[in-house]
Amino acid sequence: MQTLTLRPSFLPPTTEIFIGKHILKTGRLKDFCKSLGSKIVIISDARVKDLYGVSLAKTLQGELLTIPDGEQAKTKQIQESIIDTLFHMNCGKDTVLVALGGGITTDLVGFISSIYKRGVPLVLIPTTLLAIVDAAIGGKTAINTPFGKNLIGTLYHPKAIFADLATLSTLSEKEWMNGIAEILKMGLIFDSAIWEIAKKNLKDIQLISRAIQGKITIVEQDPWDKSLRHILNFGHTIGHALELLSQYKISHGEAVALGSVVESHLSMRLGYLSSQDFSSIQHMYRPFHHKLPSLYSRESFFAALSHDKKRQKNEIRFVCIDQIGHAVPFENTYCRAVSVQELEPTLLWMEKTYGISPH
Amino acid sequence: MQTLTLRPSFLPPTTEIFIGKHILKTGRLKDFCKSLGSKIVIISDARVKDLYGVSLAKTLQGELLTIPDGEQAKTKQIQESIIDTLFHMNCGKDTVLVALGGGITTDLVGFISSIYKRGVPLVLIPTTLLAIVDAAIGGKTAINTPFGKNLIGTLYHPKAIFADLATLSTLSEKEWMNGIAEILKMGLIFDSAIWEIAKKNLKDIQLISRAIQGKITIVEQDPWDKSLRHILNFGHTIGHALELLSQYKISHGEAVALGSVVESHLSMRLGYLSSQDFSSIQHMYRPFHHKLPSLYSRESFFAALSHDKKRQKNEIRFVCIDQIGHAVPFENTYCRAVSVQELEPTLLWMEKTYGISPH
Repeated sequence: MQTLTLRPSFLPPTTEIFIGKHILKTGRLKDFCKSLGSKIVIISDARVKDLYGVSLAKTLQGELLTIPDGEQAKTKQIQESIIDTLFHMNCGKDTVLVALGGGITTDLVGFISSIYKRGVPLVLIPTTLLAIVDAAIGGKTAINTPFGKNLIGTLYHPKAIFADLATLSTLSEKEWMNGIAEILKMGLIFDSAIWEIAKKNLKDIQLISRAIQGKITIVEQDPWDKSLRHILNFGHTIGHALELLSQYKISHGEAVALGSVVESHLSMRLGYLSSQDFSSIQHMYRPFHHKLPSLYSRESFFAALSHDKKRQKNEIRFVCIDQIGHAVPFENTYCRAVSVQELEPTLLWMEKTYGISPH
Repeated sequence: MQTLTLRPSFLPPTTEIFIGKHILKTGRLKDFCKSLGSKIVIISDARVKDLYGVSLAKTLQGELLTIPDGEQAKTKQIQESIIDTLFHMNCGKDTVLVALGGGITTDLVGFISSIYKRGVPLVLIPTTLLAIVDAAIGGKTAINTPFGKNLIGTLYHPKAIFADLATLSTLSEKEWMNGIAEILKMGLIFDSAIWEIAKKNLKDIQLISRAIQGKITIVEQDPWDKSLRHILNFGHTIGHALELLSQYKISHGEAVALGSVVESHLSMRLGYLSSQDFSSIQHMYRPFHHKLPSLYSRESFFAALSHDKKRQKNEIRFVCIDQIGHAVPFENTYCRAVSVQELEPTLLWMEKTYGISPH
């Protein structure tokens, strides 16, 4: 038997991240896009198109494609229709895709960019707080499926992210809270300073750059999502299942906020987290609207949980925290299996607190 | 403005390649798969399933999924149906996908593996000469589209390739020739020793390991397909267009063989290749069946060419050779734009030689 090894020689792909007010109005973005390819296609939903897309298309001399608003854009059907449009436009590998919008847009366009002709250059312009601090950073792309959120996707790093903080001025209160839910999560798992700043002012601008820096640090250490990066899933195991059960009527931020409280409760019940810290967490999340989806039942909830990507060997796995700002490291990983029995008290607490009785 | 850089720290993914007779019967494959995950799913077409799949599934204690025979397997529909099956089987990220079959199977399963839950471990067991020397090596995955072959796909490296040369005993003559077309291409662009061996015996076993080694060397130097790796496209610009026009009735090997002769003619007409070398090339490819597809017309041919992935700024680009065993390096790349005028004499020659008159 002959044994050979293919060992590709390449530097890992890097992402340049530009953060500031009105950076879309500087020449930086145009120069960057032009350096990547000869044709520029900007993709956004109708609302963002009106706000920023039309003028950006002029500046970049690019084509503008529109996707539907909301989670329904992140489907196979829309992905295929955009790809067919790119084929009809005769887009080659020298086409730069620019995703302009929230996390739905950056996830979808990122996925398209990673599979169109085996990958074309990608630039992200996140326009929501959630996308700026979380979705745009780290190369995760995805679409939703009937089996759960983000179950089809790739790891594909954008060439650059342009986070123009001026775009935040058009955000609704609900959209702000979506981003804040992820910022608070970063505070819980990684950076207690975030928690301290948030206690004083949930909209302190420092929170944004600290959250971005936290995400960069985590992704750099574990780009393939094999260990440390799992901590970013805190609040999301429960959160994703609730989003799925609500048929995506609960916003991602609401779901993550609720999931963060519930998973903090679990961390406490499993003996990692103090009850004082848990009280502080409950208190912090009061501004969020919490309600279990009307389709909630134990059975449907476990079915929804079963598609969690951290699952191994039919065990549901959770990230745990042992204090505000620190996730529990387990052997080689940052999540642990939790049995149905161990989960039971937390589910009872969740159902009691958020108003649904167990079946 | 704040500028940050996300610089992931990772070693490029390596692929272990095992080549030999009856290596599927050793414990090596099972040990390797078990080290990658807890659930093994083998995917093959019905013919390969009967030949090797059923016994392999027993050995690996894996599940067995079947895809249709031939290019029709490499479609969005089949890709989606396999993915839905994986969801229904509740496959997590610890599921190892094993592609067992020819290049169609390894391309399709590779693509599925790269997008299912953002990537699950992949092992390839190529059972055709074409897949062993070419398709399986280098991480290119793809499905076909109505706009052309391989236009949707990813770069995703398998963890291992097990090339059991014993499986070649069940190959038809046509399938042998498919692989030999790629081996000869490697001879033309990179390794004149291949050409010399092939002159004596087209089925010399040395050709296989030299072709694999050539492909490894090229992919290692240019894993992202930005420059040197383009030479592997020799014969494929014309070849893919003809395959598309034939609605995939012409085999890949026939198309690449015909494309290699035609692109050698172009290299000669453009002044790179001697007429002696061109004669030698024409002579070598005599065993191949050459015929233009019945739907061939200039118009449909150019439409088919326009989806070539090397295309930039509406120019068709070709790899050229200046002697047997050497591709022409151009500035920063290995392909050059060829105008319709420059292509004209070669197309006339092709139409005359293979029996279709120009429209």
